[in-house]
Amino acid sequence: MEAVKVIEIKKSVFAENEQDANQLRKELKGKGVFLLNLMSSPGSGKTTTLIQTINRLKEHLNIAVMEADIDSDVDAIRIKEATGIPSIQLHTGGMCHLDAEMTRQGLDNLELQNIDLVILENVGNLVCPAEFDTGAACNAMLLSVPEGHDKPLKYPLMFSICDVVVVNKMDVLPYFDFDLEQCKEWIHMRNPKAEVIPISAKTGEGVDAFAAWLLQKVNNWKL
Amino acid sequence: MEAVKVIEIKKSVFAENEQDANQLRKELKGKGVFLLNLMSSPGSGKTTTLIQTINRLKEHLNIAVMEADIDSDVDAIRIKEATGIPSIQLHTGGMCHLDAEMTRQGLDNLELQNIDLVILENVGNLVCPAEFDTGAACNAMLLSVPEGHDKPLKYPLMFSICDVVVVNKMDVLPYFDFDLEQCKEWIHMRNPKAEVIPISAKTGEGVDAFAAWLLQKVNNWKL
Repeated sequence: MEAVKVIEIKKSVFAENEQDANQLRKELKGKGVFLLNLMSSPGSGKTTTLIQTINRLKEHLNIAVMEADIDSDVDAIRIKEATGIPSIQLHTGGMCHLDAEMTRQGLDNLELQNIDLVILENVGNLVCPAEFDTGAACNAMLLSVPEGHDKPLKYPLMFSICDVVVVNKMDVLPYFDFDLEQCKEWIHMRNPKAEVIPISAKTGEGVDAFAAWLLQKVNNWKL
Repeated sequence: MEAVKVIEIKKSVFAENEQDANQLRKELKGKGVFLLNLMSSPGSGKTTTLIQTINRLKEHLNIAVMEADIDSDVDAIRIKEATGIPSIQLHTGGMCHLDAEMTRQGLDNLELQNIDLVILENVGNLVCPAEFDTGAACNAMLLSVPEGHDKPLKYPLMFSICDVVVVNKMDVLPYFDFDLEQCKEWIHMRNPKAEVIPISAKTGEGVDAFAAWLLQKVNNWKL
């Protein structure tokens, strides 16, 4: 396997995360860099979804990925091998989320002058990452069919802060009791503006729609 | 739907959770009450697994369930309707885990003198709940096939503190790239003593083995 850069993230010293996140967002806007914060439960298919999406967008955009995990570098290596784009691993040292300062520590290890889109794959967790603004231009979450359609009832904050909910693993819909229409209704109860895009990262179904949505967001950001 | 008791849990005032957890464990031992702390990712099937397990054990043991969630009471209602045992809902007020004092607030709402086994369904999260001893006699985690076999690499603490890892959704194994032997190897890398029990809460496959394991633990605790 290829080696990837592994960054050991330090705990933030800033008490005012919101202020720090707004500052980071402004700096990134100035540089024309769109930061996407991708969140989900463990095992929802974030890395596979990113590989599919990046391979559709890399001819149009210069992309880099930051993979946050408590341990291991398997995701950063997978991304690098499958897409060829710059990919670094952030180790959170046991911490359950990233905030703006921790995100900045990762960004400092990328050559941002050449990059249009940075995707942060946050720690797999539906609770804590929702509480910390990373400075991203956009929050996306992945919900996979096997997790069930009741997740918007149980994790209200996560659904309320996301601009888009990508419903993954649609290929296994026949084997699970997952009601997509009910799920959409509950997502919109939490966040009426959230876009809902069903995909299968495994078969590629629906990924074009998510890639198109993201490309438009990035292009609007750079105007 | 039946109503269930919903407890709004307050944030702990005790700084020394470990000490508090040991004290709670001792008190429960004195009362002959076995507390099982069940953890998993969101949507791994904790509630369905509990229903299947409780229905196998309720003739042998007096059981109660505490369902912890950030919001909603759907799980506590499902347990009560499907098993008939006492079931209460704990709302964590946005908090991502339960500690010993929060667990005690739940236990105060159960009539413990009549109970052998209390099952705490912790907040769906593979990170934070692992960091806080609840005072349980035993920690169990549920890992479901769709989440992938690499989870022990990414969430080391959770796997290292669990006495048993129940691998759920074995019925959908043919549709996922999940290697049970590799998973067992990585679980045992984190925790050589962990029991691994594959089940399908949907079909009932393997649930007898988990119920037998739990019954033996409870009986040993009461000796």
